[in-house]
Amino acid sequence: MLTNADRLARILRAEALDAVLATTPENVTYCSGFWSLSQWIRRGPQAYVLVPAEGLAAACLIAPTSTLDLAADQALWVGEIRRYGGFQIDAPDPDALSSTERRLLAILGSEDGGDAVATTVAAIRARGLERARIGVDEVGILPAYFERLKAALPEAELVPAFETFRRIRAVKTDEEIARLRRAANIAERSIEAALATMHAGVSEREMAVAFHARTVAEHAEPVLGCIGFGARSAMANVQPSDARLREGDIVRFDVGGRYRHYRADIARIATLGTAPNRVRSYYGALRDGVLRGMEMMRPGVRAAEIFAAVVETVRGAGLPHYKRSHVGHGIGIDGYDLPHLTPSSADVLEEGMVLCIETPYYELGFGGLQLENTLRITADGVESFMTLDNELIER
Amino acid sequence: MLTNADRLARILRAEALDAVLATTPENVTYCSGFWSLSQWIRRGPQAYVLVPAEGLAAACLIAPTSTLDLAADQALWVGEIRRYGGFQIDAPDPDALSSTERRLLAILGSEDGGDAVATTVAAIRARGLERARIGVDEVGILPAYFERLKAALPEAELVPAFETFRRIRAVKTDEEIARLRRAANIAERSIEAALATMHAGVSEREMAVAFHARTVAEHAEPVLGCIGFGARSAMANVQPSDARLREGDIVRFDVGGRYRHYRADIARIATLGTAPNRVRSYYGALRDGVLRGMEMMRPGVRAAEIFAAVVETVRGAGLPHYKRSHVGHGIGIDGYDLPHLTPSSADVLEEGMVLCIETPYYELGFGGLQLENTLRITADGVESFMTLDNELIER
Repeated sequence: MLTNADRLARILRAEALDAVLATTPENVTYCSGFWSLSQWIRRGPQAYVLVPAEGLAAACLIAPTSTLDLAADQALWVGEIRRYGGFQIDAPDPDALSSTERRLLAILGSEDGGDAVATTVAAIRARGLERARIGVDEVGILPAYFERLKAALPEAELVPAFETFRRIRAVKTDEEIARLRRAANIAERSIEAALATMHAGVSEREMAVAFHARTVAEHAEPVLGCIGFGARSAMANVQPSDARLREGDIVRFDVGGRYRHYRADIARIATLGTAPNRVRSYYGALRDGVLRGMEMMRPGVRAAEIFAAVVETVRGAGLPHYKRSHVGHGIGIDGYDLPHLTPSSADVLEEGMVLCIETPYYELGFGGLQLENTLRITADGVESFMTLDNELIER
Repeated sequence: MLTNADRLARILRAEALDAVLATTPENVTYCSGFWSLSQWIRRGPQAYVLVPAEGLAAACLIAPTSTLDLAADQALWVGEIRRYGGFQIDAPDPDALSSTERRLLAILGSEDGGDAVATTVAAIRARGLERARIGVDEVGILPAYFERLKAALPEAELVPAFETFRRIRAVKTDEEIARLRRAANIAERSIEAALATMHAGVSEREMAVAFHARTVAEHAEPVLGCIGFGARSAMANVQPSDARLREGDIVRFDVGGRYRHYRADIARIATLGTAPNRVRSYYGALRDGVLRGMEMMRPGVRAAEIFAAVVETVRGAGLPHYKRSHVGHGIGIDGYDLPHLTPSSADVLEEGMVLCIETPYYELGFGGLQLENTLRITADGVESFMTLDNELIER
């Protein structure tokens, strides 16, 4: 299961919430297992999960009828599904159907709630929550719908909960960890596939195609594909162009796809041929920073402390002018989960968090260097998900 | 240019708006050419475009400093860029920089607006719009930010404009048409690549890998990949599984990627070997419906009229029980643009609209059949983007 049910219950208690309503695609999938195609690829389509404090068995998925074939074909862990809106699916011979098809037919046979708001209100009333304090993930619900929800539940207290969901998601379940490890490894193998195309004259775009083709071959989806050559590697978000690789050039990869909805975000640096001295010495300093951070990580350590030590290490190891706003972040169904490794972060590491630790350095006219690893916090340290080593790749 | 500037000006006039503020990634890219990585792949990161009624030369992009390397590396058509937030990029030798790097350095040298709201307020004030009526794309702005924006501009009238942007985007520019045509053709070639793997025993997932690999090879991104075999093809949103193909099975493709941010959405049906008679006759009726719709389409025709004629044609051609909620929709930077081909639609076709026309049929226990073409409305009819023919593919 993706939902960290214990943590959800604890955080709802701590925030005095009787229920939460997930509305962004990330939180809907996280709370139910339901991946709604239209909600993930567009802005506007509405699917929600109402999770009462008593737990997921009492939870309710609210979704457009047109998407519910996916609910029948996926493994969900909510106790109820409510649908809204029409959608034509014929079933002239109900006796001849598979179990998935029968499940779908049962869902289609349930009452049409009218629209997303009316259906949500009915689900809230059915649970006796019409006077409750409910956290609403305010980022995914259409603003006009949020207003209608408030008007329909005048005695309920509806408070924003996008940040509450982020706090819940910060400690991962075993299933999430397995998906994140796999996503990270797919990204590594996609880097290897891209490196196999490395020669003088290859373009950033050609290398990106090799990268994404490997991601796709491993049943993952391309998401992040920053691949820049030479001085272009200094652009943090560099998008592959027709620029061609030359001897001695840096290749910066800041990349990762989505495997079963879970994100990867790793970085490696390669050079075509022997790396110039400055690349080597700067890279060594950045690597030492990452290794220092990984060494410090364990439950109870403050994120801000790690930030300070990582930056200090990089400065001491050969990049005295190094400055950064963060040196890492959680990762999960969203690419930037908690904790944040920033100087002002109040986050404290906990067992089961999954993080990216990174020390990017961007210098215009020279290039960008970056090492980014993904790992989980164990009872007494970290488990790195990486199979690649931490060294500069010279090919 | 992606923005239909004349239509934008006309619609702002008709809706008595002095300016619009784009906030969803689709509308930001549409109004400026700026594609902001973080905004496209996550929920939360904020980038906006303020477009005053006098036009794009007076428009302003508002974006996080950390994303503005992309603004320097992309061709934008807004007159001003305002940044907010810190981001460390070193530039020890400004004289040795390329033109892109100098552009980035100039942007980084501009004032930090503080945050998205403060920067937007400053841009609005700088244009003397603090008492204006401004349409705000309410779906992309964080709700708390929209409240702060209202509080900071007490004399302005801020009204929701997500639907206004949809009306503006409904008629495409030449650049949009070129991208949409290319996206559609990439989807067709990706279907051909998938069909090349077709044999008894291939899995839906294996065929999906072949499909997406071709999309990636053509520098497009996978988005929509509904590929279902046999009875599974009756699930409208079917996601590829380990189900394996058998002789006589239907293969339903409802698919399309994103090429330079523009979407494809086409459908074709294949069978392994000779198609069963019912598949042939039903498919023929569905195809006749699509062809009837294409025949009717020209500027001035009502969408609801097309819906009625298409459904009527399918019913008369061998599928008397055919029912549908829509038979097509516009397509652009969003997968469902205006117009909507529904029975209650008030939309009227205009030259330059790009549409998908489709007649899906889903029957549980039997399968799903669907033909979906993409085309543009010309001065006196349509230009189909399809190079594949409209027939059932038997292989």
